[in-house]
Amino acid sequence: MTVTLVCSASKEVRIGFDQPFVVIGERINPTGRKILAEEMSNGDYSRVEADALAQVAAGAHMLDVNAGIPLADEPAILAEAVKLVQSVTDVPLSIDSSIVAALEAGLAVYQGKALVNSVTGEEDRLESVLPLVAKYGAAVVAISNDETGISEDPDVRFEVAKKIIERAADYGIPRENIVVDPLVMPIGAINSSGKQVMHFVRRLRDELKVNTTCGASNVSFGLPNRNGINSAFLTMAISAGLTSAITNPLHAEVMQAVLGADVMMGHDPHCARWIQQYREKSASDATRGRGRRKRRRSG
Amino acid sequence: MTVTLVCSASKEVRIGFDQPFVVIGERINPTGRKILAEEMSNGDYSRVEADALAQVAAGAHMLDVNAGIPLADEPAILAEAVKLVQSVTDVPLSIDSSIVAALEAGLAVYQGKALVNSVTGEEDRLESVLPLVAKYGAAVVAISNDETGISEDPDVRFEVAKKIIERAADYGIPRENIVVDPLVMPIGAINSSGKQVMHFVRRLRDELKVNTTCGASNVSFGLPNRNGINSAFLTMAISAGLTSAITNPLHAEVMQAVLGADVMMGHDPHCARWIQQYREKSASDATRGRGRRKRRRSG
Repeated sequence: MTVTLVCSASKEVRIGFDQPFVVIGERINPTGRKILAEEMSNGDYSRVEADALAQVAAGAHMLDVNAGIPLADEPAILAEAVKLVQSVTDVPLSIDSSIVAALEAGLAVYQGKALVNSVTGEEDRLESVLPLVAKYGAAVVAISNDETGISEDPDVRFEVAKKIIERAADYGIPRENIVVDPLVMPIGAINSSGKQVMHFVRRLRDELKVNTTCGASNVSFGLPNRNGINSAFLTMAISAGLTSAITNPLHAEVMQAVLGADVMMGHDPHCARWIQQYREKSASDATRGRGRRKRRRSG
Repeated sequence: MTVTLVCSASKEVRIGFDQPFVVIGERINPTGRKILAEEMSNGDYSRVEADALAQVAAGAHMLDVNAGIPLADEPAILAEAVKLVQSVTDVPLSIDSSIVAALEAGLAVYQGKALVNSVTGEEDRLESVLPLVAKYGAAVVAISNDETGISEDPDVRFEVAKKIIERAADYGIPRENIVVDPLVMPIGAINSSGKQVMHFVRRLRDELKVNTTCGASNVSFGLPNRNGINSAFLTMAISAGLTSAITNPLHAEVMQAVLGADVMMGHDPHCARWIQQYREKSASDATRGRGRRKRRRSG
């Protein structure tokens, strides 16, 4: 059973086939968030702090931290954000950048074993990111595209994932430190993308025996009621073997889908987490509905 | 590809691996509904009619009709209920009774090809129900238990299903007219029951090539937030190959899980049904949220 360990200075998270699903909070990312981008550029991390606390309170097991702001000093900002988030929460972080110097700056200040987000199958990325991952003993998200782009054929993407794993081994990075992103396409554009991902995730688990993650919200791009599609996607993908996702834990419906999937997979012994999460709310709802005030007081 | 055809006088429903999931409304059932039981006993079918219309409006593709009332004349009541429901809706029906004479009374008045609910692997049931199914050219729900009870081992239940299919063949009932119920156990009591059902449903599809149905709500018995668990179960079970379920279409969350699963399976071309169901609601919600009254009026 493959387990990917990541940790902060004080907390360990295990991503694995027999573990509860790991939710990596996506909110600390200035892409498309103009106010957050301006604040981070100006050294104001108050919103980063609030986002970190809110996501952990909502049940995120890890947080993704991204500082991709055009023309800004991304390495310095990412390092500051990593330090700030580690000072207010104890969950392990995913250090997220397309700039290698920013990944290094984040890793240099990070306390614990981080998840580096990400490396692709492109030669220049392999040669620049993998040495960093090896140097810091980190885990890494491997995105299954290469110089030829993103293939629509999941079996081609499988070969890219395999290449990244082999190349990582050359740098001494073990398979359990690689978390493959199958790349989820919007199902509104490619109707078969749901079945493609299930097939791909199952092959990654059964044949390559690696953990997996993905940006789950992409699947619902362009559709109404996105949380409904995201919930269906996550539930099915967990069934196929997906072991983590970068998503928004502030959406209660999505977190419910994850907790429900854990129950169905037998990863919530005695349904204890489910009962803890929903018991109180249901009991008070039922009580209110029936006007049993006495029972409520004694409960 | 196995397709189970059922129909009313004017409408056909196809249950199959490559078809949208079929929801069979469970509400017309006096078990545990004291007022409904009294009304049906007294020849008052107004609630049956209302339940039929509401379930079809909520998206049910078929309706289950049960008249199991202790000490009542079940054959006569079931026949009346079947006639009434067929007079107000055009969806095909599942005729549901544990009394063979009631199944026969329902079949005698039914217009079209019904689903008979159900036969088990018990000898006396096989010998009394299968001839009826053959006589009326109906389809039948096959429940995978026998004289020894319900095995906790899904592979034992698989053998029971296989026996029923073989016995049905002796009566000239083809495999496509049999819809196997894998029997879903409450996951609060048996934590592995989710994985068991997925495994069993996959074997039924891949090895026996039969369609499947189940009483989906049973999985959440005893747990809070039952619709959340039922949604996770249905989504995963559809992914494993479940092709229909007897459930409550009046729960919007459960219907959303089914529609979302159809999208993920590629059974909703261009996501057309999803968009139709949620576009208007989302648009008006978004409008209300942002106070864009003009846009709402023009939409």
